[in-house]
Amino acid sequence: MTSTPIAELWAGLSDGAEARPEAAYRLLRAAVESFAERGFHATTTRDIATGAGMSPAALYIHYPSKAALLAEISRAGHAATLELVRTAVAGGDGPAERMRRLVEEFTAWHAKARTVGRVVNYELHALPEDAHAVVAALRLDIEREVAALIEEGLAAGVFEVAEVRTAARAVTSLGIDVSRWYTGRSSETPEELGRRYGELVLRMLGADLRGGLGRP
Amino acid sequence: MTSTPIAELWAGLSDGAEARPEAAYRLLRAAVESFAERGFHATTTRDIATGAGMSPAALYIHYPSKAALLAEISRAGHAATLELVRTAVAGGDGPAERMRRLVEEFTAWHAKARTVGRVVNYELHALPEDAHAVVAALRLDIEREVAALIEEGLAAGVFEVAEVRTAARAVTSLGIDVSRWYTGRSSETPEELGRRYGELVLRMLGADLRGGLGRP
Repeated sequence: MTSTPIAELWAGLSDGAEARPEAAYRLLRAAVESFAERGFHATTTRDIATGAGMSPAALYIHYPSKAALLAEISRAGHAATLELVRTAVAGGDGPAERMRRLVEEFTAWHAKARTVGRVVNYELHALPEDAHAVVAALRLDIEREVAALIEEGLAAGVFEVAEVRTAARAVTSLGIDVSRWYTGRSSETPEELGRRYGELVLRMLGADLRGGLGRP
Repeated sequence: MTSTPIAELWAGLSDGAEARPEAAYRLLRAAVESFAERGFHATTTRDIATGAGMSPAALYIHYPSKAALLAEISRAGHAATLELVRTAVAGGDGPAERMRRLVEEFTAWHAKARTVGRVVNYELHALPEDAHAVVAALRLDIEREVAALIEEGLAAGVFEVAEVRTAARAVTSLGIDVSRWYTGRSSETPEELGRRYGELVLRMLGADLRGGLGRP
């Protein structure tokens, strides 16, 4: 079992999680741990129920199948990420400062909620078709928000990139991959890593960090 | 089943693969496909043998277990990647040109051999302890090669980064994550993506692309 905190996924996020019954929350948490540890295919509903301290029958009151649990974890995880990205993009500062905040938070999030991150990013192929479509739409929205911010920076003369889509992909990719390699033994805190990645990404996008944008 | 070409993993690489019996090669290929599709835990030796057109008994002539297959895939995959990195780093050009080539090839490789890439990067936790140690050592070598090239660029005044380890991690991370998101439907060829990522990484490392380094 990992000791990763995963409460960040739902805690404090505006996806209606506050209204979720505590038993459903326990099931989602147990499912995340099982899927991350054994993979979706090798996990049984009994594993998940046991992890949540319930009987399999009690599990079915809340979710009809392990696929339904995976679908809900993936939907909620992506919805929370989109919310985080939108909040950062909608700030009042210039495009470079907003991009920096976006990368800082996106990166720190993937380090902190890495167990959830692995499940929502690496078990996509196991999603039922309708759930896959929902998640694909959320992922597209995330990429579009990042691309739109890059476009804004280009229009303002703050960024300089040849291919907006490739650059947007690189920005999200760097953050997502953090959930693969980050461990509790990493020498950087999630926030430190976020700040360093924020700096690297701004350079990657051609922002001139000497012009008062850089932090001391 | 994916239609990803995976022959790149062994073909033409100097890990002694040329001497591998054809049946062993077929088993490795079938194991990669099964692990990528269902995950390691949900794959049986029978699945792998069937995929290779053999009986389970014939499989055991070559590998004692599915863990042994995973170990060999991971070792060979990482050894091949290290070889690729070392070749790029050892070139005769300046640090920026060598970094560009490293990123171009590392990226294109992870796009082309993405099925292998997923297995060797996302099933690490399933490795037996001794195999895990072998792979961890190879991964460390890869990171060190990249970090050493960044150090060289810093010493030559060509790069400018605050944290060499974080920058090296970002460089490898960008490439590795390609195997997660790249598909046969991607609008960029592996080589195009490599060139674009080469450009983005050089900027990230603070290389001045206007000074004759940039390509037209």
